[in-house]
Amino acid sequence: MRRQITGFSNPTVKALRALREKKHRKASGKFLAEGLRLLTDARESGKLPEVLVMASGRDPHPLLGALETDVLAAGGEVIETSEDVLAKITGKDNPQAIAGVFAEFDTALSAVNRNCAPIWLVAQALRDPGNLGTMLRTGDAVGAGGLILIDDCADPFSVEAVRASMGAVFTQQVVQARWDEFLPWLRSGEGQLVAASLRDAVDYRGAPYSAPCFLMVGNESRGLPEAYEAECDLRVTMPMKGRADSLNAAVAAAVLAYEVLATLGG
Amino acid sequence: MRRQITGFSNPTVKALRALREKKHRKASGKFLAEGLRLLTDARESGKLPEVLVMASGRDPHPLLGALETDVLAAGGEVIETSEDVLAKITGKDNPQAIAGVFAEFDTALSAVNRNCAPIWLVAQALRDPGNLGTMLRTGDAVGAGGLILIDDCADPFSVEAVRASMGAVFTQQVVQARWDEFLPWLRSGEGQLVAASLRDAVDYRGAPYSAPCFLMVGNESRGLPEAYEAECDLRVTMPMKGRADSLNAAVAAAVLAYEVLATLGG
Repeated sequence: MRRQITGFSNPTVKALRALREKKHRKASGKFLAEGLRLLTDARESGKLPEVLVMASGRDPHPLLGALETDVLAAGGEVIETSEDVLAKITGKDNPQAIAGVFAEFDTALSAVNRNCAPIWLVAQALRDPGNLGTMLRTGDAVGAGGLILIDDCADPFSVEAVRASMGAVFTQQVVQARWDEFLPWLRSGEGQLVAASLRDAVDYRGAPYSAPCFLMVGNESRGLPEAYEAECDLRVTMPMKGRADSLNAAVAAAVLAYEVLATLGG
Repeated sequence: MRRQITGFSNPTVKALRALREKKHRKASGKFLAEGLRLLTDARESGKLPEVLVMASGRDPHPLLGALETDVLAAGGEVIETSEDVLAKITGKDNPQAIAGVFAEFDTALSAVNRNCAPIWLVAQALRDPGNLGTMLRTGDAVGAGGLILIDDCADPFSVEAVRASMGAVFTQQVVQARWDEFLPWLRSGEGQLVAASLRDAVDYRGAPYSAPCFLMVGNESRGLPEAYEAECDLRVTMPMKGRADSLNAAVAAAVLAYEVLATLGG
């Protein structure tokens, strides 16, 4: 269905704007992704928005045309609105902007097939949505199966995390679990749990990684709880030549993930 | 000197708040760093703020005491103000917050001694201050000499970049240069220029890196200009197993930098 809407107080406009806030995403089970590139990535990964929003009279573009056709064919909605209303929804003053509304994906551990990939990234209490999205992007690059978010992490469906993922939110499985759910699940099958750690750790280079390898990094300020590290099969450390004793969480995950990829035969 | 100031319209308060904006940093040659941890990192790296700002009646802390003593001994100022005014300066509602004002460092290429470190990071048109700060932090970790910013990059002295650097802005040399200054400078001495690239590139792993190695990454959206890549001594590529064809810029720099560190004997 294709329709025009006008006016800031239109309930659809309000509902779309509200998706910038976590509580409204949670309540509706929907999230926003913005930009033709991101929406094209989604489409090419087999994920279509339920609703596509753009300005009336927007410049035509072959990728946008393909997106509109597919959304309509799948029974979705294409909404055209004024540039002003669009700017309210996207928070950007860009008449070429487009936004898509997606249903949130299933993030249950039970949906994971651990043997579908040699690497899984795991983040504990990761607070920064940019770091979270960057980990998804890195996961896509190293051929990981997905990102498992332990305890209270940033929302993977926030606009910032989706943007930083550069489309990987549509290709990587995203899982949300408490530690006391994750650990029994992990131990119910194959899987090596590896932490970047300073305690009782071996050099990350040439360490005995094995698939499926679950690479875990901790909170940006506090790192991993000691009790979590103690449960790991392998603790690895990276050289720190300077004053600092840690890397950015997404950077640590990436350096490790590329080492694991090389070891397991990337 | 120690003094109390009150009132939002006090000129010192206005000048401090203004340091959140680039044009005022440029005009004054000063920048802000916030938080006891960051200021302690600075002090331990031999860099003291000219001015230290905190709330009157703030809880005492041995590290803060040491900082105050050193600032006063060096002829700097310690300013106490109300929690409200402090919140205006730092943008945070935290009565324990502290802020320091530093003179910007010399960022001229001529200040660089290229042989003081085996690795230098180079970023071209990097727009995100978080990525910039993260690259400084990674540089500290791999024992790099510093970060060379080519063309129009984010401001390394912005509050966001300083925060993301986790203190590395005080240990890493920061250089700002145009490409047509950088390249002749580089070629006037020893130095291997390496780019993360998709064009005519060899596997990043086991590539023939040599010190001093200048590792260059490009703009977040556009990557490096082709003409810049053509000037590199070595173009390397990292495996990309998924849909995307690139990594986050700070992540790419880190994965490369750790590989170079391992190759050169970290």
